[in-house]
Amino acid sequence: MTQSTRNSPLTGFARRWTLGAAAVIIVGCWAALATADDPLPSWNDGAAKQAIIDFVAKVTDEGGPDFVLPEQRIATFDNDGTLWVEQPMYTQIVFAFDRIKAGAADHPEWKTTEPFEAVLANDYQAVFAEGEQAGVKLLMLGHAGMTPDAFEQIVVDWLATAKHPRFQQLYTDLYYVPMVEVLQYLRANGFKTFIVSGGGIDFMRPWTDRVYGIPPSQVVGSCIEVKFAEVDGKPTLMRLPQANFVDDKAGKPVGIQRFIGQRPILAFGNSDGDFEMLEWTTAGDGPRLGLIVHHTDALREYAYDRDSMVGRLVRGLDEAKERYWILVSMKDDWKKIFKFEQN
Amino acid sequence: MTQSTRNSPLTGFARRWTLGAAAVIIVGCWAALATADDPLPSWNDGAAKQAIIDFVAKVTDEGGPDFVLPEQRIATFDNDGTLWVEQPMYTQIVFAFDRIKAGAADHPEWKTTEPFEAVLANDYQAVFAEGEQAGVKLLMLGHAGMTPDAFEQIVVDWLATAKHPRFQQLYTDLYYVPMVEVLQYLRANGFKTFIVSGGGIDFMRPWTDRVYGIPPSQVVGSCIEVKFAEVDGKPTLMRLPQANFVDDKAGKPVGIQRFIGQRPILAFGNSDGDFEMLEWTTAGDGPRLGLIVHHTDALREYAYDRDSMVGRLVRGLDEAKERYWILVSMKDDWKKIFKFEQN
Repeated sequence: MTQSTRNSPLTGFARRWTLGAAAVIIVGCWAALATADDPLPSWNDGAAKQAIIDFVAKVTDEGGPDFVLPEQRIATFDNDGTLWVEQPMYTQIVFAFDRIKAGAADHPEWKTTEPFEAVLANDYQAVFAEGEQAGVKLLMLGHAGMTPDAFEQIVVDWLATAKHPRFQQLYTDLYYVPMVEVLQYLRANGFKTFIVSGGGIDFMRPWTDRVYGIPPSQVVGSCIEVKFAEVDGKPTLMRLPQANFVDDKAGKPVGIQRFIGQRPILAFGNSDGDFEMLEWTTAGDGPRLGLIVHHTDALREYAYDRDSMVGRLVRGLDEAKERYWILVSMKDDWKKIFKFEQN
Repeated sequence: MTQSTRNSPLTGFARRWTLGAAAVIIVGCWAALATADDPLPSWNDGAAKQAIIDFVAKVTDEGGPDFVLPEQRIATFDNDGTLWVEQPMYTQIVFAFDRIKAGAADHPEWKTTEPFEAVLANDYQAVFAEGEQAGVKLLMLGHAGMTPDAFEQIVVDWLATAKHPRFQQLYTDLYYVPMVEVLQYLRANGFKTFIVSGGGIDFMRPWTDRVYGIPPSQVVGSCIEVKFAEVDGKPTLMRLPQANFVDDKAGKPVGIQRFIGQRPILAFGNSDGDFEMLEWTTAGDGPRLGLIVHHTDALREYAYDRDSMVGRLVRGLDEAKERYWILVSMKDDWKKIFKFEQN
C-alpha cells in the first residue's frame, strides 16, 4: 500500500504540479519584492548600484534597443576576493597548507624539502616567491592520488571546522552579502550565473550551490588531470598530480569558451587575474557590463590593490575608466559586507 | 545484491503486480491519464517505456526510499546515434569532408596527400582504416585557424543547407522524436539534461538548444585547444590545430567529472563509445538507470550493431542484461522516429 503510493507515477505527476505552482509563487513573490523593495538592499545608493540596476533593466526590456534574449544572459563571477574573502591568503592555499601539515608526520623528509619546508613554517611569502603559479603547484601536490569523491569529503570536512584567522568564522560564512544579492537579482531576471575562478574547480563545487546558488556544472576553475579505470571491476576515477588547466588571466576567456561556450554579457572580478575575462566580456557586441570589487575597507574587510601578494589589482585600476568598467568600492558602495555583522 | 535489486528498473514494475486492489486502481488511473497525457507518446508500451516512467516516478517521490534531490537529477545523453542519426557517417565527419573539399582548390597538393586524398575521393573506409581516432584527427585539421565565432558561423551555414543522402532532410531535422520526449519529460521532472558526446563540442553547441532544449553550457564534447591573445588591441580567441580532450569511451566519465562535476543518475547511449559512461553512471549509489538505443529498424532508420563502422555496439549488447541496462529497440519501442514521418 505504502509501496504502491511511493512508486505510483501519479505521485510524480502530482508533484510536478506542486513544484510548478511553487515556482510560480516564488517568481511572483520576487517580482513583487523587486518592485516594492530594493533588489540590492546591502548596497548604498550610488553609481555602482545604479549601473547594475540600469543594465538589468535595459537587457530585460523586451522591445527596447538593448534587449538580450534570456538564453544569452550569461554572467561570470570570479570567486576569491569577488564573492568571498581572499585575505590574508586564498582559502584553498590555507587548506593545502593544512593538508601538507597533516601529512608531515609520514614524511620527515619534508622538513628539509621545498616547498614543504616553507609550508610547514607557514611561510606564505617564501612559497609565493616564485609567483602565483606556486599556489597552483602546491595544489597539484596535495590534492591528487585519490578519487574525486574522497577529495570532496576532505574539502567538506575541512570547511566544516576551519576558521578564518581574523574573523573566526567558517570560510563559507565569509561570502559577501551584496554579491549574493547581485547573483540572486540577476537570476531572477533570467541570467545564468557562473563562477570563473583561478581556484580549483573541485575545491569550490562541494559548496557553491549552498552558498551562492551556483550548481557544480556552472563552476569553472583550474583543474588537474583525472583518469578513468576499472579497478577490481569497479569503474573508478583517480585524480592525478598533473595540471590540466589553469583558469587564470588569459586562461579565463579560454575556460569560458570551453565550459560555457558563450561570451558573457556581464563579468565581475577583483584582481588582474580577471582582466582578460572582463576584457573578453565587454568587447562583445551589444550591452556589456564589467565590474571590479575594489577592496577599500580595512575596517570591515581589507584594503589592498597594487601591492598585495594576493588579488593584486594594477592594470584593472589603471584602465577601468577608459574601458567603462565599474569600480565597486567596498567601503562606499556596500552597506553591509558579512551576514554576521552587527549593525 | 541489494544494489542490483535497487538498480533493476524492473523492480518497480514487477512489484506493482504483486500489490493489492489499491495498486490496481492507481495503475488504472495512470493508464487513463496516460491516454490523455502520455509523457512519451512516440513510445510503444513495453518494458523500456515503463522503465523510464518508473524511474522518474521513484526518484521524484518525496518521502519514498528512492527519492533523489532535484539538484542531483543529472541525466547524460550521447548525441550521434542516440539523439540523432549517425549513419551512414557521423554528421560532423560529413561536414569535415565538405570543408576539405571546399578548400581543395587552394591546396592542389591535397590530391596526393592522405588523409585529404581519401577525403576528396569520399572514401570513409580508407579514412577510418586507422580507427575512429582518424575522425578526431580530421576535425583537428579542418576546424582550426579561426575564431570560435567564425567557426560557429560556418557550422550554422552548413547545417542550413546540407541534406542527409538518404532522407533528404536537414541534419538538424533528423533528431529522434522519442528521445526529445524523454529529454522534455526528464526536465519537467526536475532533471538537468546534458549531452556527453565524442563529437566536437563546438559543432553541437550552435544548435542543441533549438533542437533538444540543451543550452551550450550543458554540452560536453571533444574539443581542440583555444588560445587567447590581444590582436591589434582586440581580445581574441583562436582555435588551434591541437586536440585538448577526446570525450569518448573512458573519456566520457572524465568529461562528466570535469564539465558537470556530478555523477549522473541516468545515462543514455547507443554504442560502445558510451560503455564507460553507462558503467560510471550505474555504479553509483541509489537509483540509477542506464539505457542503450539499439538500432534495429532498417526500414525506418538503420539496423546495425556489432559490425558497423560507426556506432559499433558489442560489449554493451553482451553485458546489458547482467548490468540491468535497458536495450531500447528502435523497431519495437518507437512508434514514431522522425517528425517528418507519414503515419
